[in-house]
Amino acid sequence: MARWEPNPRERLERAAMELFALQGFEATTVDEIAESAGMARSGFFRHYRDKRDVFSGGHDGLAVLFTEGMRSVSSEASPGEAVAAGFDAIAAVFFTDERRDLAPTRFAVIASSTDLQERDLLKRQHLTDSVTAALIARGQDEVQASVVANLTALAFARALPVWGETTNTEQFSVIARHLLDEISAAARHCLDRPRPAASGE
Amino acid sequence: MARWEPNPRERLERAAMELFALQGFEATTVDEIAESAGMARSGFFRHYRDKRDVFSGGHDGLAVLFTEGMRSVSSEASPGEAVAAGFDAIAAVFFTDERRDLAPTRFAVIASSTDLQERDLLKRQHLTDSVTAALIARGQDEVQASVVANLTALAFARALPVWGETTNTEQFSVIARHLLDEISAAARHCLDRPRPAASGE
Repeated sequence: MARWEPNPRERLERAAMELFALQGFEATTVDEIAESAGMARSGFFRHYRDKRDVFSGGHDGLAVLFTEGMRSVSSEASPGEAVAAGFDAIAAVFFTDERRDLAPTRFAVIASSTDLQERDLLKRQHLTDSVTAALIARGQDEVQASVVANLTALAFARALPVWGETTNTEQFSVIARHLLDEISAAARHCLDRPRPAASGE
Repeated sequence: MARWEPNPRERLERAAMELFALQGFEATTVDEIAESAGMARSGFFRHYRDKRDVFSGGHDGLAVLFTEGMRSVSSEASPGEAVAAGFDAIAAVFFTDERRDLAPTRFAVIASSTDLQERDLLKRQHLTDSVTAALIARGQDEVQASVVANLTALAFARALPVWGETTNTEQFSVIARHLLDEISAAARHCLDRPRPAASGE
């Protein structure tokens, strides 16, 4: 798995996040981002289609990497093991210690824009769909596959802010695996329908 | 629960869906929708903010109705029973037999536009968040609540196309309850195989 290095693409991402956080997503221009990253406007467009793409660019790769990670484990392995390998794969590239400092800014900018939230949900749905397909390819039936994929996306969504907390020192894959276990345990019991009238508040 | 009647709001929705399906979402104007529904442009804006709102208008109400349904069942009832009541509540208003003929058109139009898909996902996330909050209010812990809410949103998403199939004759609440049972059964087993200690790369 590739190690994070401050290549032009990453430099642009950092410059963009800083400017978005400082002056807002809407008010920031591509020219300003390029200038702040020390390159020409054309350099920006070599890496991203537009401003929104700075956020989503990474996420397309996310689903690809995640499912590659899943395919790297034995076909005998459980769905939980396959998904855990997916988390390891994305952690090694997107959620490294070096990139953690960007996370709070990124979340804040996304939270500030409905447009970016929508795009973010679309990317998460893309991850869910990709994981579903990968699980079906491993022999799971379609309902099971989509349940596991949805719980995986939930673990992912919950892991991100925990990992990005300024005081956090744990690795993303450790956090995601832990949350996946917690979510799996909850899933085993939470919808048991005929519940004796007992545990009410 | 209110019965469906062809009030102005519904008339506009039907006119809009027909036009979107015929000539595309982008190419259809508010004036055309209003005219086709037999009212003035100002009539359209009394009910919807813009074209996209024709899709999402109903969905804001969806989360409100769903959680009202959940609150209508005893606090002793299981999360599964509460959620099933939520499905009954939305079925009685939004997914009636009379409205089923609109469904295939609606799905086709949404599928044709990334913009509408994003908006649709945002509405589904809003439903998930509302159900999570309602379950926490019923005394569930936060992880369990979000697991149940996510599985509920999955059941909802899977129920819609089944209900909307032109050959379908089953009621939405029956379909949704059935899928919720199927999903719950899958959730009980799909992630529970014992996993060997961390495989980290």
